[in-house]
Amino acid sequence: MIKTISWASGTVVMIDQRALPHEERYITCRKYQEVITAINDMIIRGAPAVGIAAAMGIALGVLNSPGERMKEDFYRICDAFSQTRPTAVNLFWAIDRMKSRSEKEFMSTPHMKADAVKKALTEEALRILEEDIRANRRMGAHGKHLIKDGDTILTHCNAGALATGGYGTALGVIRAAHTEGKKIHVLVDETRPLLQGARLTAWEMKNEGIPATLITDSMAGSFMKRGMVNLVIVGADRIAANGDVANKIGTYSLAVLAGENGIPFYVAAPISTIDCYAKTGDETPIEERKAEEVLEFHGTKIAPEGFNAYNPAFDVTPKQYITAIITEKGIITAPFGKGIKDLA
Amino acid sequence: MIKTISWASGTVVMIDQRALPHEERYITCRKYQEVITAINDMIIRGAPAVGIAAAMGIALGVLNSPGERMKEDFYRICDAFSQTRPTAVNLFWAIDRMKSRSEKEFMSTPHMKADAVKKALTEEALRILEEDIRANRRMGAHGKHLIKDGDTILTHCNAGALATGGYGTALGVIRAAHTEGKKIHVLVDETRPLLQGARLTAWEMKNEGIPATLITDSMAGSFMKRGMVNLVIVGADRIAANGDVANKIGTYSLAVLAGENGIPFYVAAPISTIDCYAKTGDETPIEERKAEEVLEFHGTKIAPEGFNAYNPAFDVTPKQYITAIITEKGIITAPFGKGIKDLA
Repeated sequence: MIKTISWASGTVVMIDQRALPHEERYITCRKYQEVITAINDMIIRGAPAVGIAAAMGIALGVLNSPGERMKEDFYRICDAFSQTRPTAVNLFWAIDRMKSRSEKEFMSTPHMKADAVKKALTEEALRILEEDIRANRRMGAHGKHLIKDGDTILTHCNAGALATGGYGTALGVIRAAHTEGKKIHVLVDETRPLLQGARLTAWEMKNEGIPATLITDSMAGSFMKRGMVNLVIVGADRIAANGDVANKIGTYSLAVLAGENGIPFYVAAPISTIDCYAKTGDETPIEERKAEEVLEFHGTKIAPEGFNAYNPAFDVTPKQYITAIITEKGIITAPFGKGIKDLA
Repeated sequence: MIKTISWASGTVVMIDQRALPHEERYITCRKYQEVITAINDMIIRGAPAVGIAAAMGIALGVLNSPGERMKEDFYRICDAFSQTRPTAVNLFWAIDRMKSRSEKEFMSTPHMKADAVKKALTEEALRILEEDIRANRRMGAHGKHLIKDGDTILTHCNAGALATGGYGTALGVIRAAHTEGKKIHVLVDETRPLLQGARLTAWEMKNEGIPATLITDSMAGSFMKRGMVNLVIVGADRIAANGDVANKIGTYSLAVLAGENGIPFYVAAPISTIDCYAKTGDETPIEERKAEEVLEFHGTKIAPEGFNAYNPAFDVTPKQYITAIITEKGIITAPFGKGIKDLA
């Protein structure tokens, strides 16, 4: 099993996702600032994985804090992590989990037994990791029934083991169907600009022996029209209370094209991805990343010198294009608002 | 003005489109085989430009043929060009034009006055080039009225001067609106896998001072949904008698997304792009190019070693997604079958 992120004797170890698929390299973070850099530089990415990284980073920062200013350090570190990436809500959810636990510990230990608080926060981060893996396996168990023997499944970006604590959300559902012996074929969108599909999803599919073929993002619609796609499954970075889904740029287009071609469009995400405070997806902040990611490719300039580019990292898919949302607690269908309220 | 292709003292000179946007390099073809290589290797590309290259290549081959076996050389050379790229119909149209002219000359000069035939075929190739530029300027004159002051126009691939004899089809319409003083902004789809948008359209827009911004193909739908696109204009590689349009892979998706968002979707192409023998787009052969174009990027492997990829170079957009087809003879709207019959 792929170890996306782990806690090892007071350090945070991650597979360096920038080096995949060609090199399997691990980095060890000894300071919380290194975890922040890892999130900003996309060494680790994917909504649930970023949440876990933040939780572990906070635990690491507190572990290295002198007892006397631990409380203020804790809030400062939480704040630093909340500045990393704005769209995926799992980051803020994980920070909130750490805050709740911390507040509980500080209350139960008013005399600031530093070691007990440090231990509790490390435990909480590890619990978030373990819960995430369990949630993914449950999503797989629920979602695998949506995949039939012989199906070709289109997926976008990487919602796999690498985007989570392990197993994956969208790829977890695909894994579960494959493990059950269903003969499936995965069409992997390359996912420009950072190629998470070509680099990460392709790597996971190859490692696991799941038959898969790479396509450019622009080909997906044509394959749908030609009858070569039976269903689409993607992950999510934030789900609004009404069921609108923010996910990697390009997801909205796939959902519209699936609808136009009568193909089911599924989103697989843990309950922690739901932002109950956002009524609709219009309230989701969309991260704009630097133009160089679009203007360059592995350091090679592709556009003319001085040309401009836009680089929104995510888009919002309105609920009406979504067939169902697969969560660890079950599958939600329209009306999504009610389904989400009941489960979350 | 960009010189995509020209005839210079018995040679064919082309700008090497593989080297753009970073280097403006020209290659000189002294044998028809070099023109075939240029088409196969995408030194020259774009439906009308490929047609012109084939016509000039045929003229070049005949020019270098000894008089006694000129006729059989001619047909052999025509056949060699027809093997290069299957989708763009302009290639076959240009070959047919050369055949008609050749047959006329052979009939009028039954004693095989080789020099006269050679001169006539060179003249025919040059006429095809000149007619193409004139047709593009007329498309511009017709199409510019579809663009309003302040519009943002999305385009895909390169349907510009580089794809034609000069001026361009889709970009010709954009040029004409810009020349008229309309304040416009062009969103340039990068167009994976070969990046004709990022490399060629961006280069043309920059050279001409037309405000433009690069996006990845996957972003187009999201920009439409966010109200940031007023119209879409693309070129075409083959238009069936009913109005279905084959064009660069990704065009179909843009047309569906434009329709979903109430945005006009225009195709600009010369009459020579119409394939009256094809009742619908289903009859259009779709070129499948080598997987390496998707698996690699400027020679760097992006997917895991041994991974597979699909690489259809074109897709078909059914007529119902098209608002209008802009030709040199006027603008065709639904019912396209009738409009095409009347004009072609």
